[in-house]
Amino acid sequence: VVGLQDAQALVWPDWTGPERLAVALAGAPGVRWVQLVTSGVDAVRHLLDDGRTWTSAKGAYAVPMAEHVLAVLLAVLRRLPEHARSADLVPRPATTLHGTRVTVLGAGGVTAALLPLLAPFGCHTTVVRRRREDVPGADAVARLADLPALAPTTDVLVVALALTPETHHVVDGRLLALLPRNAHVVNVARGAHVDSEALARALAAGHLAGASLDVTDPEPLPAAHPLRTLDRCLVTPHVACPPELARPYLLERVRTNVARARAGADLIGRVDVRLGY
Amino acid sequence: VVGLQDAQALVWPDWTGPERLAVALAGAPGVRWVQLVTSGVDAVRHLLDDGRTWTSAKGAYAVPMAEHVLAVLLAVLRRLPEHARSADLVPRPATTLHGTRVTVLGAGGVTAALLPLLAPFGCHTTVVRRRREDVPGADAVARLADLPALAPTTDVLVVALALTPETHHVVDGRLLALLPRNAHVVNVARGAHVDSEALARALAAGHLAGASLDVTDPEPLPAAHPLRTLDRCLVTPHVACPPELARPYLLERVRTNVARARAGADLIGRVDVRLGY
Repeated sequence: VVGLQDAQALVWPDWTGPERLAVALAGAPGVRWVQLVTSGVDAVRHLLDDGRTWTSAKGAYAVPMAEHVLAVLLAVLRRLPEHARSADLVPRPATTLHGTRVTVLGAGGVTAALLPLLAPFGCHTTVVRRRREDVPGADAVARLADLPALAPTTDVLVVALALTPETHHVVDGRLLALLPRNAHVVNVARGAHVDSEALARALAAGHLAGASLDVTDPEPLPAAHPLRTLDRCLVTPHVACPPELARPYLLERVRTNVARARAGADLIGRVDVRLGY
Repeated sequence: VVGLQDAQALVWPDWTGPERLAVALAGAPGVRWVQLVTSGVDAVRHLLDDGRTWTSAKGAYAVPMAEHVLAVLLAVLRRLPEHARSADLVPRPATTLHGTRVTVLGAGGVTAALLPLLAPFGCHTTVVRRRREDVPGADAVARLADLPALAPTTDVLVVALALTPETHHVVDGRLLALLPRNAHVVNVARGAHVDSEALARALAAGHLAGASLDVTDPEPLPAAHPLRTLDRCLVTPHVACPPELARPYLLERVRTNVARARAGADLIGRVDVRLGY
């Protein structure tokens, strides 16, 4: 990469992988700040160091992502994927979002943008987060340790938190077994938050009403994977915030952070290298 | 039907057709009030008479129907039907509901229930209605005659009005040609509001970005109809308010109207026999 020898900051517009970033950083000893364009940093975690300031795009894509969550949630509740796939034009019993109990894992931007979209549906919302702070617009706040106790009264479980060793397989067979049979799971975070095999078994056995996965483990899912063939599962190809919807939000974030860096102000989306997000 | 000879009121729980209602009324000379369970009365219009009070379920199913409108709208904008149908896991350029200009035909219950669901998306909403009254929550109100002028700035056209001779084919080839190429059409009213052939031609030619039809003309659509095979069209089998979601709202409406009838109060959903809805 040309010109990096003298650079003090690096905006790294690479969605494909960490290898080229590692090479670029090796040739850029003066870079004190790296702005990433993804919300999650799990793919570059091994590159994060205390010698630099790292900012991710966390929160930047919240508005399109929250829209995707509502879209897939309403779609699976109203059986739209099955209507789209089938030529039979046969009604299938639908459920409604109105008055449901929604548990959202994570208190980041997606959750903040999702709560106002759920408000007109009169959902009872519980946000599961690390800190004991209230979340504006949420009816309740809980911690990860409370999740098994929350599960039996959760109609909709939305996964929208960072992937860390602590949250790997946070939705496992044990948690799925605690959800009611009418429950729906939506994952827009990282595939490894959900145990794919356990989810497929729960759906196939009717222990769960439906699922929508924008991220999967593995990703992409092999064509023969049961989650690709189950009627009540919608798999989308990591499009909760596709580039054409992300672009204006990314430009806004970079513009803001460059201005803040020049002014010596705190940067938005700073990664806590120790916490890993 | 037993016991109708002495009945003064009739709640007619028949979703299938008008023939049995005609027979029942012939044997029920004392019935002064007929409560229908459908929102539209186009199927029984020939039975409507000035000698009786007719009430439809208009407005009763507004909440589930508005939810369906938002569900299919977000689904087609985010290309979910295509993701559901396809095994390729290839992203398709999506659009957002945020900031769009939404024109809703009809100022009934569905529209009243839809506007709060659109509010968090910052849509600019125009409601097309017969009267010149404001609609709470709408940014603008217009009349049917204004529709050609509104079309070029309409991103989303929602059809949610009664079917009358005046609104038959209100969405015809001429109107479709005036919509921008990014426009989406949603019909949850009656199939005959939309010229199916003109819609299929517009979609196939790329003059329209997408459509979602819960009602069609003819209904059901033949398997070979182009609207059944076009990627950007989602056809659902008249499930905007399926029986399992309608039931509590219907019971509530009947209970309310029986109580009102006993008290001599105005009934809800009274049909204007002259206007035909």
